[in-house]
Amino acid sequence: MIPRVHAPGLPPAGGIVEVGADEAAHLVRVLRLGRGAVVRVFDGAGREWDGVIDTASKTAVRIAVTTRVTPAPEPRIRYSVALAVLKGDASDEAIRDAVMLGVSAVRPFVSIRAETTLPALSRGHRRERWVRVAVASARQCGRATVPVVHEAVTFARLLRDVEDGCRLLLVEPGLSGPCQVPADLPPPSAVTLAAGPEGGWTPEEVEAAEAAGWLRLRLGGRVLRAVTAPAIALAACQAVWRET
Amino acid sequence: MIPRVHAPGLPPAGGIVEVGADEAAHLVRVLRLGRGAVVRVFDGAGREWDGVIDTASKTAVRIAVTTRVTPAPEPRIRYSVALAVLKGDASDEAIRDAVMLGVSAVRPFVSIRAETTLPALSRGHRRERWVRVAVASARQCGRATVPVVHEAVTFARLLRDVEDGCRLLLVEPGLSGPCQVPADLPPPSAVTLAAGPEGGWTPEEVEAAEAAGWLRLRLGGRVLRAVTAPAIALAACQAVWRET
Repeated sequence: MIPRVHAPGLPPAGGIVEVGADEAAHLVRVLRLGRGAVVRVFDGAGREWDGVIDTASKTAVRIAVTTRVTPAPEPRIRYSVALAVLKGDASDEAIRDAVMLGVSAVRPFVSIRAETTLPALSRGHRRERWVRVAVASARQCGRATVPVVHEAVTFARLLRDVEDGCRLLLVEPGLSGPCQVPADLPPPSAVTLAAGPEGGWTPEEVEAAEAAGWLRLRLGGRVLRAVTAPAIALAACQAVWRET
Repeated sequence: MIPRVHAPGLPPAGGIVEVGADEAAHLVRVLRLGRGAVVRVFDGAGREWDGVIDTASKTAVRIAVTTRVTPAPEPRIRYSVALAVLKGDASDEAIRDAVMLGVSAVRPFVSIRAETTLPALSRGHRRERWVRVAVASARQCGRATVPVVHEAVTFARLLRDVEDGCRLLLVEPGLSGPCQVPADLPPPSAVTLAAGPEGGWTPEEVEAAEAAGWLRLRLGGRVLRAVTAPAIALAACQAVWRET
């Protein structure tokens, strides 16, 4: 597989592009590439080119961009995931999988049972980390689009921020409501899936989401791990809506 | 949530059951439970009871089993996953997720691009480890059934071992074939999903599987991580076949 490089400042019609320190380190230290190596360059906004490394050091790489190429396709439906921040690094995994499944936005949030706070996330520079995870996942899965990673907000704020489109709240097996994505729900143009933290939603959170127009979604009778549940829900939607 | 305990030798009609060292350690050291604590006991073969801890030490716990209860439901379709052994501990994660999604069997295998060998797996006691992972995942997701974890085999042997039912081979986006689970494929009574290693299948492996009657399954246009692809494929099948 040809190595892929993220270069947000790609010139629109070829030329030379200089990539940042993170990508340079990946190319030079991890992949051990140098002058003349063939790469693919994507701009994170959906465009991708063939390229050849022109000059390379451990902190900067210049790439001669040549022919425009077709990246992995984006889904027809605009998927977003709203992810309760999980313990440790588990949110990284959830974001990695969501990017592979083609989401266009990631909305982290802190709910009642989340074991962190917004100030702690900010002190830990977590959003910057999640952006790096999203870039790495796009690089790996073949997308030329890097999803937007929003600032983490409270769950109440999330409900105010996401007012439109099909909104699905993943709930545990114990709760009532339809199981699997309803077959009579027509494929929407945009969908947001919200997944709770390890400890699940409080009853008040489920009520608040429903009052704001969210639909409950259960995915079978077994308790899913919080880290995998968002990918499983995205996969279920894409299977039912026949996403290619 | 009431702690759940795996006790394969459960008496059929209540009485006292003694659980093994692994489960005793979980109850006493991790959960810090002692005499009088209320638990649920499942036998791994689909049966579950309420129970109360009678005596507890760090190596053995005796539980008085009382009333039969209903565990998380098993899927209607019999799902099996055949998993190429992945690098490091990644197979643990794939097995954990497959168990949560209700598989009744896990078939690990070594393919051409797998970075391990059957003797190495045997020396590392990997099957024993995977059985423990399956038990832990059943405990966590509410199932009273622990899937069978088969001995690892070669891919060629897997193709001989799994001769019946619907057999789906997860392939990369670059390959041709239907995308998503075909809507005209009626829900089978049993399905086996096979997922390749990090480096994917060789062309010969795909050919051999097709010659043996396996169907290709692509899941969208982006490259999925090997560790998550099996769960995503199971979720896609369960969504299309409306598994509850």
